[in-house]
Amino acid sequence: MNKIYNFSAGPAVLPQEVLEQARDEMLDWHGSGMSVMEMSHRGEEFMSIIAKVEADLRDLVKIPNHYKILFLQGGASSQFAMVPLNLLQTKKEADYVSTGQWSQKAIEEASKYGTVNIAASSVDDHFTIIPEIDTWKMSRNAAYLHYTSNETIGGVEFNWIPDLSRIAGGSTDIPLVADMSSNFLSRPVDISRFGLIYAGAQKNIGPAGLVLVIIREDLVKTPISGTPTLFSYQTHVQHGSMYNTPPTYAIYMMGLVLEWLKKQGGVSAIETLNIAKSKLLYDLIDASHSYQCPVARQDRSRMNVPFTLRQSTLESEFLKQAKARGFVQLKGHRSVGGMRASIYNAMPYEGVKALATFMEEFENQYG
Amino acid sequence: MNKIYNFSAGPAVLPQEVLEQARDEMLDWHGSGMSVMEMSHRGEEFMSIIAKVEADLRDLVKIPNHYKILFLQGGASSQFAMVPLNLLQTKKEADYVSTGQWSQKAIEEASKYGTVNIAASSVDDHFTIIPEIDTWKMSRNAAYLHYTSNETIGGVEFNWIPDLSRIAGGSTDIPLVADMSSNFLSRPVDISRFGLIYAGAQKNIGPAGLVLVIIREDLVKTPISGTPTLFSYQTHVQHGSMYNTPPTYAIYMMGLVLEWLKKQGGVSAIETLNIAKSKLLYDLIDASHSYQCPVARQDRSRMNVPFTLRQSTLESEFLKQAKARGFVQLKGHRSVGGMRASIYNAMPYEGVKALATFMEEFENQYG
Repeated sequence: MNKIYNFSAGPAVLPQEVLEQARDEMLDWHGSGMSVMEMSHRGEEFMSIIAKVEADLRDLVKIPNHYKILFLQGGASSQFAMVPLNLLQTKKEADYVSTGQWSQKAIEEASKYGTVNIAASSVDDHFTIIPEIDTWKMSRNAAYLHYTSNETIGGVEFNWIPDLSRIAGGSTDIPLVADMSSNFLSRPVDISRFGLIYAGAQKNIGPAGLVLVIIREDLVKTPISGTPTLFSYQTHVQHGSMYNTPPTYAIYMMGLVLEWLKKQGGVSAIETLNIAKSKLLYDLIDASHSYQCPVARQDRSRMNVPFTLRQSTLESEFLKQAKARGFVQLKGHRSVGGMRASIYNAMPYEGVKALATFMEEFENQYG
Repeated sequence: MNKIYNFSAGPAVLPQEVLEQARDEMLDWHGSGMSVMEMSHRGEEFMSIIAKVEADLRDLVKIPNHYKILFLQGGASSQFAMVPLNLLQTKKEADYVSTGQWSQKAIEEASKYGTVNIAASSVDDHFTIIPEIDTWKMSRNAAYLHYTSNETIGGVEFNWIPDLSRIAGGSTDIPLVADMSSNFLSRPVDISRFGLIYAGAQKNIGPAGLVLVIIREDLVKTPISGTPTLFSYQTHVQHGSMYNTPPTYAIYMMGLVLEWLKKQGGVSAIETLNIAKSKLLYDLIDASHSYQCPVARQDRSRMNVPFTLRQSTLESEFLKQAKARGFVQLKGHRSVGGMRASIYNAMPYEGVKALATFMEEFENQYG
């Protein structure tokens, strides 16, 4: 086995201990004689697994009882449609903040179902900042306000939760909806500030094929007529995520990740580590003459660190040498180029440290 | 580890060798240093996996080149909506054959998007038969005809492919659409007879969280306005199932199952085994004074064998003793009661033989 460090933006590295446990339990979960993959989703074994996953999640993130947790399929892309289909209701319009490509995808999909007002956008800044809240403008009749708490491609992250009462026309009565796909579980979050949170699993939660939805009970209503049954939160709430067969193995893996996270000390402890990991790279980049990061300092993501080489012709050599040293998936998203180091919860500090050392060596060689 | 035989209707038993390989490769796929779960779906490693899965599937089932294969999420339930959303087009009506609860779910969902004509139904026979094709009635303007090739709950299976030219008003120009969730890969099927086939993976294909769609190219068109992007076949065809992150690990597991199936001799060889396995149980039931099967002999499923005890008060005792002997998940679907032995490809002959032996012993004890 090659020792590698995997900086993929998602699906992404998982904790070694989690994979070892999955391996050890692959043919026989807890003496049941079955793999988790073979279990009926309605059998007592899997029901006990999903119940523990939910309990552990509530505990780790302190999710109040009046929020429902749903385990769905289709990733964040499914939520780009489900949110407006279920939440627009009679208001038929919603406010969106645009901070990158994922915001834009959410906006494009929501525009199919109602009027989308862009409350704020950093498109003119090439998505390298988060617009200050004082500049946001809310529409009169928004059913909700949607934002993307971390933009995986651009590497910009909200280090604060929007306080809608501070916005012209805003009010804390307007439900806040957040796509937290790429920073959920990486830091504490006050769930009670939100109407709905969703997160594709393949960053900090588990493997691809699972999307988590946390929805305040009062927002669970009959969706727009013609909504596919699978796109109704109400249906999934009524059936406890068992309207159809859920992605059982992905849910089990999520459970192992949550147990691992508890052993690390929970989300506050992992946040401390994530701050340290990202600081290591940003400090190096800022002190360097060779590397640069386009993102405004206060809005830099702890999860996805984009950077370029001033001498851009060296980037392919950088990626080649990095790969030879076992640093894989460092290439930036095909739409932006450059490099990107995704350093989610499961990326150990040593991995980031090793990358930093390589970056320094590369700079000394070519700088 | 308890030695058990798992008769779950799905998620269901997987081949032992497949699970062993998944275990052995869990932390390091082919020397990559990564678990398949950790791989970027656009990285060269996973791209090679999905390409091989598609090639193996085309080879095993002899899928002509003018059919596209899609690896989607949401199970068959997603297809209940996607089929009408994408295939109704300007005709706005479709024919459905109703042979059980899964047909009914497909019909209910399609009714949201167009006019559904029931071409045939066995509801008056309590879904214990497949209506003979000479009795089917097609509508004048059907965009397609949909049927369920195996009803997992009722245990009725089409042992033939409908020839629409034999139906009043029918024509082979009308695309045939089949939900093959619970018998795909269990027998050879002439793909060229179909416009579209879909199958949830969690029976014969792999773990839950993956649904396979095989669609004839000319049927890939812009769906009804307002269709969620994720519910457009066109989108998934254009992006090679990579519009959003696919359920990568489930696709990998499917690949292992296909490799195993090839080693068994392919779908013809497994069909022979499936005939033998199901015959063992049906012969026992028919020869017995204690057991009965409600399904018409010619329409009995090779995959799901439902049976009851004439003395129904003994059923809980039967299930209790069965479980104690390691035969699990034999309880019939909650909507129909009784027992059901699901004996998909991965259930070994010895498992069915052992169940038959137990059934005989139980009959001798209480008969």
